[in-house]
Amino acid sequence: MIEDKNPARTNLDDLGEFGLIDHLTKNFDVKHTSTLKSIGDDAAVVSFEDECVITTDLLVEGVHFDLAYMPLKHLGYKSVMVNLSDVYAMNAVPKQITVSIAVSNRFPLEALEDLYAGIEMAAKIYNIDVVGGDTTSSNKGLLISITALGHVKKEDIVYRDGAKDNDLIVLSGDIGAAYLGLQILEREKKVFEVNPQSQPDLSPYSYVVERQLKPEARKDIPLLLKELEVKPTSMIDVSDGLSSELLHICKASKVGATIYEDKIPLDPTVISTCEEFNMDSTTIALNGGEDYELLFTVKQEDFLKIKANPSLSIIGHIVPEQEGVHLITRGNTKAKITAQGWNSLGENKEN
Amino acid sequence: MIEDKNPARTNLDDLGEFGLIDHLTKNFDVKHTSTLKSIGDDAAVVSFEDECVITTDLLVEGVHFDLAYMPLKHLGYKSVMVNLSDVYAMNAVPKQITVSIAVSNRFPLEALEDLYAGIEMAAKIYNIDVVGGDTTSSNKGLLISITALGHVKKEDIVYRDGAKDNDLIVLSGDIGAAYLGLQILEREKKVFEVNPQSQPDLSPYSYVVERQLKPEARKDIPLLLKELEVKPTSMIDVSDGLSSELLHICKASKVGATIYEDKIPLDPTVISTCEEFNMDSTTIALNGGEDYELLFTVKQEDFLKIKANPSLSIIGHIVPEQEGVHLITRGNTKAKITAQGWNSLGENKEN
Repeated sequence: MIEDKNPARTNLDDLGEFGLIDHLTKNFDVKHTSTLKSIGDDAAVVSFEDECVITTDLLVEGVHFDLAYMPLKHLGYKSVMVNLSDVYAMNAVPKQITVSIAVSNRFPLEALEDLYAGIEMAAKIYNIDVVGGDTTSSNKGLLISITALGHVKKEDIVYRDGAKDNDLIVLSGDIGAAYLGLQILEREKKVFEVNPQSQPDLSPYSYVVERQLKPEARKDIPLLLKELEVKPTSMIDVSDGLSSELLHICKASKVGATIYEDKIPLDPTVISTCEEFNMDSTTIALNGGEDYELLFTVKQEDFLKIKANPSLSIIGHIVPEQEGVHLITRGNTKAKITAQGWNSLGENKEN
Repeated sequence: MIEDKNPARTNLDDLGEFGLIDHLTKNFDVKHTSTLKSIGDDAAVVSFEDECVITTDLLVEGVHFDLAYMPLKHLGYKSVMVNLSDVYAMNAVPKQITVSIAVSNRFPLEALEDLYAGIEMAAKIYNIDVVGGDTTSSNKGLLISITALGHVKKEDIVYRDGAKDNDLIVLSGDIGAAYLGLQILEREKKVFEVNPQSQPDLSPYSYVVERQLKPEARKDIPLLLKELEVKPTSMIDVSDGLSSELLHICKASKVGATIYEDKIPLDPTVISTCEEFNMDSTTIALNGGEDYELLFTVKQEDFLKIKANPSLSIIGHIVPEQEGVHLITRGNTKAKITAQGWNSLGENKEN
């Protein structure tokens, strides 16, 4: 599909490594005074007035993305989001990233230009300097490794391990959509393989597909919390699914948690798509992943500051560790939440 | 060959991603007070009293290394060296790294344990904290992406662009050996493919083979320069070959350079191996790469501080940009140095 979209094809080998890097990074301007030296030396130099948070993610073709339905520009954008989301989850402001790619020579230069256009767009919208990276060939496929640097005052850092008994559990936005978007795209890929002339109508699914192809990191949430004068006691980003992230917070904080099925924020498209696929929307919300929302805990006394905000949902509360991590269903049964997500068979049901 | 060395085989899928990360990183202790938070949150937190330098490198199986002759422990060690070398080239002290790997399930857990043992050894010897990373599966082979953070006072940073007319050009250690080590290993691989019973005697080549398999970053050079009270005007590490690195310095500094063939430091093994392979040792020294020595320039007035040091060789001097970049051969001819290295045919010879 890349070939169809890119009639112009320039062979990567014609540019050489340094020529390629120069070409792909020529539009990256420096926005931050903290970027003392960007691309072009043995290393970049960044100045930190506050603390530095650092996070890195590796995205592999065929494992994390499928170029049959993931346009390269979207892939570039998303690969930046994945990293920024981790920085926001520390309550920090991302300002610098490095971008490394390994790419087989089946990709023409024009394909990499698309990829970097997505990276550039993300950098522009999220106010990020691309300060370095590495470009190399691969034997097979495309791999992207991004490292993000965030800036934060020591007293503002939020770890996973600060949740305390009775804290409220809060989720930004809504969840489950990105996973369903993937299911829709996988289905359309199979249809396309059988009938390449098919023209899929994705409009009923535009929300869930966009959540999969063009996720946004929640840049606004640390700002909102600051405005509300709320410092979360713990925070994590929802990349692997709500249940997995909640268990991470509970394990790190040595606490348990109770969340309520009817409080989990779902978009109407998620509910309708789940009905169409005959899937349980709660299971999808708990285990879906890739939503890049923020899950955090706040003290009970912050309830009034949080409760009316349309971006935030209070989904439960922290309990002592020995009480475990549970979901209270709409039918008022208590189901244990496991690393694989909510056990919908209820085999681990307690009480 | 991995299978032969590792009779015990534990399938990676049995551990899961989080189990694998926990298992591989369990020996990584925190050595620096600047590491406020290491592995285990959305991001690591590092405190910088001085400036932060950041560099990243991607090593791909089949492109940068061949597991037929590169033991995984050496690979782990070398992948750290490659990054530290860039930090030293900024005159900075590396203190933190992140390590990401993508690995196919053809690798058993025991192979990754070997890889991480090499990373751990490098971290121990070079006083580095491994503060984060990402572990994922790949469709094919092994890929390692490391990012290193260095600490340096602003006034001590050495860039590529500060070389001035008449500065002396200085090289640490000796060069060309790592490339020859690779040639030896490639030759033995071919012999092994024809006759798997062959027992290669690598002892005459132990120096060049070790330079390829277990390079050391020049941690000592920034310390030595500090002791000598010499601040280089420019510096770069020799990863792609002397000629390529010299051209980088000249381009960034907008200067030319003259270096002398008889001043290029070569180990006796390099000379004897070149004779055996019927190769020109100067060509190898200029274009070989992977030596991870430091190439730098100092002011003329620092000559006396530098000249007697056994770790350092003065190989030439900086000239005005319009005079170009040249090698003066033993036969006193002047050959233009190009990006592909010294043009040994002398076609570009100037006066």
